[in-house]
Amino acid sequence: MLRWVLPEYIQDALPAEAAKLEDLRRRLLDAFRLNGYQLVAPPLLEYLESLLTGAGQDLNLKTLKLVDQLSGRTMGVRADITPQVARIDAHLLNRKGVARLCYCGSVAHAMPSCLTATREPLQLGAELYGHAGIEADAEVIRLLAETLQIAGVGTSRIDLGHVGLFKALAGKAGLLPQQEEALFDCLQAKDLPGLQDLLGDIPGELRAALFALPTLYGGAEVLAKARQIMPAEPEIQSALNDLEELAIRLQGLPISFDLADLRGYHYHSGVVFAAYGGNSPVALALGGRYDSVGRAFGRGRPATGFSLDLRELATQVADPLPAGAILARDGGEQGFAEAVAGLRAAGESVTIELPGHEGTWREAGCDRRLVLRGGAWQVEPLQGE
Amino acid sequence: MLRWVLPEYIQDALPAEAAKLEDLRRRLLDAFRLNGYQLVAPPLLEYLESLLTGAGQDLNLKTLKLVDQLSGRTMGVRADITPQVARIDAHLLNRKGVARLCYCGSVAHAMPSCLTATREPLQLGAELYGHAGIEADAEVIRLLAETLQIAGVGTSRIDLGHVGLFKALAGKAGLLPQQEEALFDCLQAKDLPGLQDLLGDIPGELRAALFALPTLYGGAEVLAKARQIMPAEPEIQSALNDLEELAIRLQGLPISFDLADLRGYHYHSGVVFAAYGGNSPVALALGGRYDSVGRAFGRGRPATGFSLDLRELATQVADPLPAGAILARDGGEQGFAEAVAGLRAAGESVTIELPGHEGTWREAGCDRRLVLRGGAWQVEPLQGE
Repeated sequence: MLRWVLPEYIQDALPAEAAKLEDLRRRLLDAFRLNGYQLVAPPLLEYLESLLTGAGQDLNLKTLKLVDQLSGRTMGVRADITPQVARIDAHLLNRKGVARLCYCGSVAHAMPSCLTATREPLQLGAELYGHAGIEADAEVIRLLAETLQIAGVGTSRIDLGHVGLFKALAGKAGLLPQQEEALFDCLQAKDLPGLQDLLGDIPGELRAALFALPTLYGGAEVLAKARQIMPAEPEIQSALNDLEELAIRLQGLPISFDLADLRGYHYHSGVVFAAYGGNSPVALALGGRYDSVGRAFGRGRPATGFSLDLRELATQVADPLPAGAILARDGGEQGFAEAVAGLRAAGESVTIELPGHEGTWREAGCDRRLVLRGGAWQVEPLQGE
Repeated sequence: MLRWVLPEYIQDALPAEAAKLEDLRRRLLDAFRLNGYQLVAPPLLEYLESLLTGAGQDLNLKTLKLVDQLSGRTMGVRADITPQVARIDAHLLNRKGVARLCYCGSVAHAMPSCLTATREPLQLGAELYGHAGIEADAEVIRLLAETLQIAGVGTSRIDLGHVGLFKALAGKAGLLPQQEEALFDCLQAKDLPGLQDLLGDIPGELRAALFALPTLYGGAEVLAKARQIMPAEPEIQSALNDLEELAIRLQGLPISFDLADLRGYHYHSGVVFAAYGGNSPVALALGGRYDSVGRAFGRGRPATGFSLDLRELATQVADPLPAGAILARDGGEQGFAEAVAGLRAAGESVTIELPGHEGTWREAGCDRRLVLRGGAWQVEPLQGE
């Protein structure tokens, strides 16, 4: 086995990619800060119960486990930062009012979520706690659109859904947890024959509503169609009202609806959304409301937010022009140190030439050279070195 | 078991600390870039053989292990980024000449290295590959001093040592690997009685030299004393010459010597150093030459560099003045959005007031409020809200 081989679906970020990720990271965290979101940094490792609190089996399967030598208990490598931030809001900050938090850090997945996914996403996100109103959902979705715009990708579409619709229908149909789980899987896969099998025993109106869910995607007409098909239950009407209200508040953004989108269903509780941009066929960012997660940490707080994989986002961002370095050789001439310091103070990367160098300086990122001409230090293009 | 309890020696970074870490991270990575060091980001997880290549038992004990579900092989959570960067230099960049690389990322330790240590350091470092000369050692030590200065901590002392001294003495004494390991432990602990026991069978001059090692620390006089005590072997003279030459090149820095300092001995091969600053009793940064590590990745390249724990460094840095946010309520007045956008463009964090807020806005980090006075938007101090 070659020692330099990395595990499958795990990658290094070499200089060009690492610089791009760092640049995106800074610009997006800065935007979050300007919008009042405070940075937090939860740990890579926690006890498994903490990491999986409020989350479902899917997160459990994604989480790598190991034994804590100090306590003998099972720890996990975090597979998602959102529940960690909910813990911080509920237990550590313990604020009564609204808390806006953001984060950026690596997570690890036991298995890749698809054939093109990494097992080590760089998760970046923003979360708003302590506000149950639709204003909070609108704020985080606008922040998400701003995030994609700042990244230079833009938003081609934001799909809105509402976990409450499925929950109300499944609850009314009296499904057992396993049945609900199977139904959920079918809806996610938009597996209509499977759905038909599963819905056999369910009364007519509910069956029609559940069966219609995967067809309810598109523009504003979707909500009108849903009102016709769905039972006149208060939870269902309230979910549809939320979506309608939210679409009004998000005027100017490319909003559409997908009422069968239940990604993150296991911890989400209300409006959910998925944002598309660039030429990515998959959603670049996912988010939604997850009001119940904090309860396990001692305080149930309304919560909404979004997250994305910065590595995935970076694939949609044009490579920045490489900022080449200036090569400088210290030959003992007067003013050398000052010239180098001056260039660095002006933001230039200056690489000191070390004696006996064998390669080319271009491969080390240099494109110019500092030279002394007629008593003055000048920067000139690097000649085939 | 309470769900919000973190494993021992593992911590969250809450907003004040996270902001400080982010600020330090950016300023130090910027300094590395200005000095020609390119950022790389190796993964959290690798196969164990890759992570432990060239390193000793101490790194193995520190590394958390888990099974890769895809390959069935053992992976480790990285406990040190330096060997990963050596792998990138040797195998991926594959440059002939000098490569300067830097990084910042979390690592995990199975056990804390001492009672005050974290098990999740945020490792930041810079490495210089492809140059065997003392110029390279001098460059990274100067960069380390600059790093501590930029952090606002300063350097109170830099101890230089040389792994070659111990290696030459142990080699000449014909010690078995276990004996060498035991001797190494005694020297690290400066355990003189233990040392006396172990050195019983060793011929007189070597015994005297090994026994003297723990006493050889202090100023420039240490090198003169070492030349008297140590055998006149070429490796030993060359190591002492290196240290002498390095001290000359580092004039202006608070250099001292500690010839028994063998931290990182398992992968280091030449000059090693430890930097102290602030009021920290332990070294804030460690580094040295590790010319052999790349060999296992297919290409032995000269290498020198340093790393530090940014969380540890941050404890030595004064808290920045909190940059308070401006609270702004959207009451539908004209020019509100423009006023908010203007403040944000000027770098101010603006928090939108959401209806029904229960706590105080101060706890959310606000210290000012945007108000409309006589038709003009103004920022005023927040009154006990």
